[in-house]
This record gives sequence, C-alpha cells and structure tokens, in this order.
Amino acid sequence: MSRKGILFVISGPSGVGKGTIKDLLLSRLTDVRLSISATTRPPREGEVAGRDYFFLDSQEFSAMINRGEFLEYAQVYTNMYGTPKRYVQDKLSQGYDVLLEIDIQGAMQVKTKMPQGVFIFIEPPSIDELAFRLSSRGKDSQESIAARLAASHAEMESLKYYDYVVVNDNLEDAVNKVHSIIIAERCRVKNNC
Amino acid sequence: MSRKGILFVISGPSGVGKGTIKDLLLSRLTDVRLSISATTRPPREGEVAGRDYFFLDSQEFSAMINRGEFLEYAQVYTNMYGTPKRYVQDKLSQGYDVLLEIDIQGAMQVKTKMPQGVFIFIEPPSIDELAFRLSSRGKDSQESIAARLAASHAEMESLKYYDYVVVNDNLEDAVNKVHSIIIAERCRVKNNC
Repeated sequence: MSRKGILFVISGPSGVGKGTIKDLLLSRLTDVRLSISATTRPPREGEVAGRDYFFLDSQEFSAMINRGEFLEYAQVYTNMYGTPKRYVQDKLSQGYDVLLEIDIQGAMQVKTKMPQGVFIFIEPPSIDELAFRLSSRGKDSQESIAARLAASHAEMESLKYYDYVVVNDNLEDAVNKVHSIIIAERCRVKNNC
Repeated sequence: MSRKGILFVISGPSGVGKGTIKDLLLSRLTDVRLSISATTRPPREGEVAGRDYFFLDSQEFSAMINRGEFLEYAQVYTNMYGTPKRYVQDKLSQGYDVLLEIDIQGAMQVKTKMPQGVFIFIEPPSIDELAFRLSSRGKDSQESIAARLAASHAEMESLKYYDYVVVNDNLEDAVNKVHSIIIAERCRVKNNC
C-alpha cells in the first residue's frame, strides 16, 4: 500500500453503543486495524497479550507515560489503561486505517497528539433514551446512572471538537453512517496526494 | 427541515462519466435537488422550461451576468450556458442538498462564489482509459479527442481545489463512493450546528 493510513476515533458517552458499532464495522472492514490498549490489570481467562491488550506492570506503564509513549491514558479504579502511540503509528505507516474506540476524555487527549485523526462522536437519540439504555442493560446502579447522565450533559459540550456526529437511534443506520464516513475520508484529496 | 442544505459539485474531465454518476445518484437520493442551468439555445423537443433548463434570450442572459446572478457561465459555440445562483440558494435555504454537475472550468467559478460547497472530482482510471472511452463512444473526431486529452492533463492540475476525488474505474463503486461522501458530509458537526 502506498497511501498512509487514517486514524478514526469513535467516541461518545458511556452506554451510547460505540463498542457495538466498532465491532460491526470491524466485521465489515477487514482492511482496518483496531488500536490495542495497554493495561496494568491482569489478563482475564481467554485474553491474549498483544491481541486483546498489552499487559504491563505498573513500572512499565509509568515508564511509558514518562517517555510520552501514550496517545492517552487514564486510571480506572486501581488499574491504568492507555493507548500506545507506536502501535497506532506503525499501522498507519504500513497504510492501514486504524480504529480507536474510546471515551470522550480519552478522545480529547488523542486530539492533542494526533489532530489529523478523524473524530466521530456517537450521540444517543436523547438524554432520556440514554437513561433508558443504561437502566435496561442492568449493569449499573441508579446512583451510577444519575452520575453518568450528569457527565453526559457535560460531554455533549465536547461535540465541537469532533469532525462528525452520528446519532445512534438505529444501530444499522449508525453503522452505515460511520462506514460512509470511512469511505468518504479515504476519497479526500488530502489523503490521496 | 431545519438544517441548511449542502451544495455538492460533481465535476471532472469530459467523458469521465460524471453525468451517469449524477443520474444514478438522483435515482437513489430522492431528497436531493438538481441544479437547473439557464441557456440561450432554443428548447429541443420534449424539453420543459424550468425542469430541463431555464430558456432565456441573449438579452436576459446578459442582464443576469451584469447583475452577478450566475454561479458560473460559459459560451459554448454560439450559445450561453450558466448556473443561476438564486435557484441553488433557494433550495439550500429550504434545507435541500443540491447536486451540480459541471465541467472543471465551471466548478472553479462556483468555488469562488460558494467555497462552502463540497467539491468532488471524478477521475478517469488513467489518461489511456479516458482516450479509450472517448474513442469508443464514437461521438468525437480523432482531432477533438487529442484536444480533450491535452485539456485533461491540464485539468488534473485543478484537483487540489477539490475536497474529494473518486476514480471512476467501476461505475457502481464510483456511485457508492459519491453516495458515501454525501452521507458523511451530512454528519459533519459543522453541518449539524
């Protein structure tokens, strides 16, 4: 391949369905590579190092932070998670487009490091709908749902930093739209020169 | 409709197939409006004023030029052709996306008047392929084909003023790509605010 790859960042509020959209896209687009995260949490059964995650100990993770080797990182409870820059850059140099699914805070960090990426915001049809989805998946307490909804309002403020917004009112439509965005971006004159 | 429409300019060298692509898009996208040209040539049998063309006499056409009412215009042999600005702007204000199929010189004029448009360059697979197509459609003399190919080389220089480039190596693929560009542009954050 001669052209350089494009980084597509798929992001949005928690519970919006961005993980499902990412999975469906990957099953359609065999020529796209998924960014692999690094984490300090131990592997779960069936997880493969270098496929599901890069598993690091805390010292290795801190050293990578200090060397500026993450596009973004965050602490979740007692574990660290991050997106290693090198893996993404290697795939892009090889001519592969890379898909990165990430929360809004992470996307904003990535934006500062790789502003040339294509940033896609997945939006719930409405805050009411998001509340309903979070409740009905039954994974979250009422309290955590309330906290997420408050965060959601704030997160919508980030929309202006994105290139595209796709409302996930219908999963098939939303996947088709993100797929179209990927096809269109590959046709951009600036990506063909 | 609340959002303002988007102007899509489909352009490229003569013989590249942009007219066919435009026709196929219109049959898929019933919510898009086609820009209607004005001309001083007399109506042909079956042509309807205001649907196929706005038919004007030379004085009316000149007056519109003087009032700056064309997005672009050109003389072809003894007749004048132009794109009336008002028709396009009315449809955009009503929330319709507008499709304008036009040669490269025309597109460059439109770009100066409506730089916010989305400019799509349809490219032949190669100059050799374009030569073959022009020959095989049998409408053009050898001399006119040679002149068109020379013009084509020059026209490729205009590519940098476009937003997207779609190679028409396969008609179905090319239509799908332009369709994807339209879907993607509708998802742009700047078109949703």
